[in-house]
Amino acid sequence: MSVNPKNAGVIVIGNEILSGRTQDLNVAYIGKKLEELGIVLSEVIIIPDLEVEIIDKVRMYSKKYDYVFTTGGIGPTHDDITTASIAKAFDVNVVRSKDAVDRMQKFYKHDQLTEARLKMADIPEGAILINNFVSGAPAFKVENVFVLAGVPEIMRSMFDSLVEHLVSGPPILTASVCTNLTESKLAVGMSDIQKKTPEVSIGSYPFFKHGHLGVNIVLRSTKKDLLFKQHKLVEELVKSLEGKILEIQTPIK
Amino acid sequence: MSVNPKNAGVIVIGNEILSGRTQDLNVAYIGKKLEELGIVLSEVIIIPDLEVEIIDKVRMYSKKYDYVFTTGGIGPTHDDITTASIAKAFDVNVVRSKDAVDRMQKFYKHDQLTEARLKMADIPEGAILINNFVSGAPAFKVENVFVLAGVPEIMRSMFDSLVEHLVSGPPILTASVCTNLTESKLAVGMSDIQKKTPEVSIGSYPFFKHGHLGVNIVLRSTKKDLLFKQHKLVEELVKSLEGKILEIQTPIK
Repeated sequence: MSVNPKNAGVIVIGNEILSGRTQDLNVAYIGKKLEELGIVLSEVIIIPDLEVEIIDKVRMYSKKYDYVFTTGGIGPTHDDITTASIAKAFDVNVVRSKDAVDRMQKFYKHDQLTEARLKMADIPEGAILINNFVSGAPAFKVENVFVLAGVPEIMRSMFDSLVEHLVSGPPILTASVCTNLTESKLAVGMSDIQKKTPEVSIGSYPFFKHGHLGVNIVLRSTKKDLLFKQHKLVEELVKSLEGKILEIQTPIK
Repeated sequence: MSVNPKNAGVIVIGNEILSGRTQDLNVAYIGKKLEELGIVLSEVIIIPDLEVEIIDKVRMYSKKYDYVFTTGGIGPTHDDITTASIAKAFDVNVVRSKDAVDRMQKFYKHDQLTEARLKMADIPEGAILINNFVSGAPAFKVENVFVLAGVPEIMRSMFDSLVEHLVSGPPILTASVCTNLTESKLAVGMSDIQKKTPEVSIGSYPFFKHGHLGVNIVLRSTKKDLLFKQHKLVEELVKSLEGKILEIQTPIK
């Protein structure tokens, strides 16, 4: 068991996310997967498709975190500048990877493997390839930076392929109680429960559904016994305040 | 007409976003609204509920951008530390705002306005209040930082209320062509069109639906005539490549 779990940062590259035209779905996916792996996602940054921004943030995150994941900008069009920018961030050249071409040849019929598509086999020199089972063109890893696609279906395939490169920690277990009580009613009781056991972090996430407010209380810990005890206390708190339990997720997976 | 449009940064505060338990929906909303207002959203950062992180990022963004928006962490529970952290970032005290209490009194019946709920009337000294028509407790503004709720329905009400505090620029107009062609086929032609008129930015956003890839080509400009011309060129490009036009959004609003 590792005492200090690994940490990670995500760099989302894309004007379309900042303009609100595209709803990012990758952060939630990566966040969930890292939690299962016992790796802490410490920070996410969303930046435009600008070379100077990509270089700056990749260098910063690569130094700051054990693992870095970028999403977006590795397609074949003029606005896909991530690969070239990553290469510049690490002072290496972009070269056509024979291995990447081979992988794409298995995926595409001969006449489909156009020069435009082959642009996606041009990657930073020395990068390690990551499989893409959805559309063929591989993701890649340079030092501790994993460079992934922006399209969620493709990104997920790439992420699932790269897990073997990660050193995982003790998984963070979660449990939750969802109730129709408001945060205001729960505040004092929850604070008391939190104080008792700092090893279990308790978060309260209000929601608004069908015109009513409610709260999802989420408990997290690597320690199953403590999590179980605290979860019971939260459940009892909700009942003592005459709240309805709308949904409950026990710590036993 | 302003030559240099205002820019903005967003700070999303919340462990639940980083853990993937909650899907952020606020960035897309704020991004869209800012684009309509002609304000450039330059960067978004997602950070955990940690005082030191909030203080650090709020100070940095407040200096770097014309406007800053934070979301999350202003409720009444023990894990809501945004308000206190913002006050520390600007070296002011948190005080109970009579104006905020008044607003909440209009919203809640007397016995509903508990001490826990009144905690949401404690805000940084000198802050300007922002209306919340969904759940009463106001958002607030300290210098150029707007401090908003995390629950999307509440955040939207707050954002719509704060627009009067923003200096808007010429709105960025958009147009798009959605096609079943792949990016690889479009790459050369799109690059040629982009080179002709740099004032219109052309982005290509691949998607994956029902097992097929397609592309949404999005054009953006503050100049309607140029946008119209470029949009026509993109439409013609798709037709010349024998692509289907799945959806088209013309630049005329």
